[in-house]
Amino acid sequence: MKILCAPDSYKGSMSSVKVAEIMKNAFRSIVPDVKVDLKPMADGGEGTLHAMWEAIEGEIIEFDCKGPLGHLRKSRYLELADNTAVIEGAEIAGLPLVPKEQRNPDWTTTYGIGEAIFHALNRGNKKLILALGGSSSNDGGLGMFQALGMKAFDIDNQEVGIFGKDLFQVDHVDFGSLDSRIQNVQIQVACDVDNPLTGPKGASHVYGPQKGADERQVIVYDEVLLRYSRLVEEAFNESFAERKGAGAAGGLGFAFLALGGELHSGAELVSNAIKLPEAVNKADLILTGEGQSDEQTLYGKAPGFVADLAVGDHTSVILLSGSIEGQTDKLNKLFTGCFSIVPGPRSLEDCMENGETYLYQSTQQIAQMAYKLLKE
Amino acid sequence: MKILCAPDSYKGSMSSVKVAEIMKNAFRSIVPDVKVDLKPMADGGEGTLHAMWEAIEGEIIEFDCKGPLGHLRKSRYLELADNTAVIEGAEIAGLPLVPKEQRNPDWTTTYGIGEAIFHALNRGNKKLILALGGSSSNDGGLGMFQALGMKAFDIDNQEVGIFGKDLFQVDHVDFGSLDSRIQNVQIQVACDVDNPLTGPKGASHVYGPQKGADERQVIVYDEVLLRYSRLVEEAFNESFAERKGAGAAGGLGFAFLALGGELHSGAELVSNAIKLPEAVNKADLILTGEGQSDEQTLYGKAPGFVADLAVGDHTSVILLSGSIEGQTDKLNKLFTGCFSIVPGPRSLEDCMENGETYLYQSTQQIAQMAYKLLKE
Repeated sequence: MKILCAPDSYKGSMSSVKVAEIMKNAFRSIVPDVKVDLKPMADGGEGTLHAMWEAIEGEIIEFDCKGPLGHLRKSRYLELADNTAVIEGAEIAGLPLVPKEQRNPDWTTTYGIGEAIFHALNRGNKKLILALGGSSSNDGGLGMFQALGMKAFDIDNQEVGIFGKDLFQVDHVDFGSLDSRIQNVQIQVACDVDNPLTGPKGASHVYGPQKGADERQVIVYDEVLLRYSRLVEEAFNESFAERKGAGAAGGLGFAFLALGGELHSGAELVSNAIKLPEAVNKADLILTGEGQSDEQTLYGKAPGFVADLAVGDHTSVILLSGSIEGQTDKLNKLFTGCFSIVPGPRSLEDCMENGETYLYQSTQQIAQMAYKLLKE
Repeated sequence: MKILCAPDSYKGSMSSVKVAEIMKNAFRSIVPDVKVDLKPMADGGEGTLHAMWEAIEGEIIEFDCKGPLGHLRKSRYLELADNTAVIEGAEIAGLPLVPKEQRNPDWTTTYGIGEAIFHALNRGNKKLILALGGSSSNDGGLGMFQALGMKAFDIDNQEVGIFGKDLFQVDHVDFGSLDSRIQNVQIQVACDVDNPLTGPKGASHVYGPQKGADERQVIVYDEVLLRYSRLVEEAFNESFAERKGAGAAGGLGFAFLALGGELHSGAELVSNAIKLPEAVNKADLILTGEGQSDEQTLYGKAPGFVADLAVGDHTSVILLSGSIEGQTDKLNKLFTGCFSIVPGPRSLEDCMENGETYLYQSTQQIAQMAYKLLKE
């Protein structure tokens, strides 16, 4: 018997790596000789790097870079065997790295992400996977571009700084000295949002407030990003700002589109990188899960993606989540069984606190049932 | 595929008949041609009659009798094909039939239970199954005896009344005119308590308060039941008061022991009467459940009893309960899977209110999993 554990994280409670590990241990406690493939999933948001490192062989590369507030710090990316660098934006310039009281798009930058790319290029990587979730910035990728050699000038022809506030000074840009190697690598961006760069559904209006932008900033950043995007588009002689996903990660989506990046669903990118389809093929039973499941799980979320992969194989996929909300009819079209790990009437706090125990016991029940029924 | 639904009730939320029905409908919604055997279980407490009526062919017999407060009312018992009458004490003299403010052992009687037996004997029944849970009285079976012809007198040789308070007047008893047919029927009493008739673990001390006895009554009833029991034992020339279960149902246990009754576990009695072992034998999969499961479920509770029956057959038994408390290791020795129906962090009130929906959806998950895995 071979099972595959490919859960997403239980947000706010357990990482996908932790969830997969508990599922494995619980299943083993019932079926000691079960073969277990661990492929913790991620959707391109926070935890993507950690999950992928667990799911596939690769090397963690440490490097020095400017953090979200411009201070020098150590960060890391993941280098896979096939010359692919997996760069998680949240590890370098993520919102959790910025103390709550300092969250302000004026003072955050994506410079470190450009440095990560530069470092990865220096190591000979030919493919970049960028997971952009959990961004702290709204700089339209200005900092990232600058770290790769682009220059932005003010009206007096002085180079501007690397922070969001510096967007306001930008008068003209020069991509002539941009690291030319960036043209020769494949750039895949994990992106699950459709937002354009600007306008009411743009980066500033939709995601600005959670990064500390006040009402005035939301309005002025929306204007300044539009002006900045025209300068960039002029340089590349192509339009990107209206494209789906341009507004992801404070405009990093836009910047990577300009660099020739392709935007993909996070689950799909991660799945391909960790060779999930092959693992699904080999499994007799698949366990997945997430903090909260509902109909949305079927649309781009990691567990839905995992189940989709298994459809052709007719392999049973069990969804074990913190909660199963709403009707299960639709979920049951993809999932053989949808179970909450919660053992009875319980508060959210209790479930958060005892999530590991509840998940362990629930997985044991699935293991017992699967093992016994498959034997019959 | 043939499944057996043999749940207990979810106390305070759904009867076992309701639970079994929901399980059936939910399973059918996934596997339309599944054969379903409905054997809602009971443990001899309230709801036993209803569950048994659903589980096996029989006729509900209506009759007139004195209720717990002595008022004439209609009640019923169940007559099975093999000349067995199933009499549920709670249907005739149960605590729920007495308004809370009138609960007082002085004014309750088991007379109606004697009338039920008399009625059943008149119809030619040869076997009596008595479920005594939910009793409102503490009369030591005085009323029941009287309805069957026994006479109790006070010191002035006047016949005493039929209520608890009348125990205090009893000076001598006469079983000479007791309905002699009672000697020739088999009496099986569902009883899951070990209490003797009197003493600190006796009927008055342990169960008196929930029937409305105040502190003084607890003490005086304990004394008067001892005196009364000596009179009865003298008449039968045998001791019963110290036997396990004599203190059940306010001393009805004692009275039935005197009449030659055998005390059995409620689950066992019900199981045999509804031919549960045969149904277990024929099932490919068994669903059971109860309001709350824990280690105690293994000791005499209906789901534990159901699972015990299946041990030899190696049939999978799934426990679907309102909550699964504590470690599942021990439960898993008997149950293939133990699942709570609760879909996420929820309050007890929410679970009570939405129990039917939660049970339906959970059963669907089990059905999907069982059906898919059994097909493989």
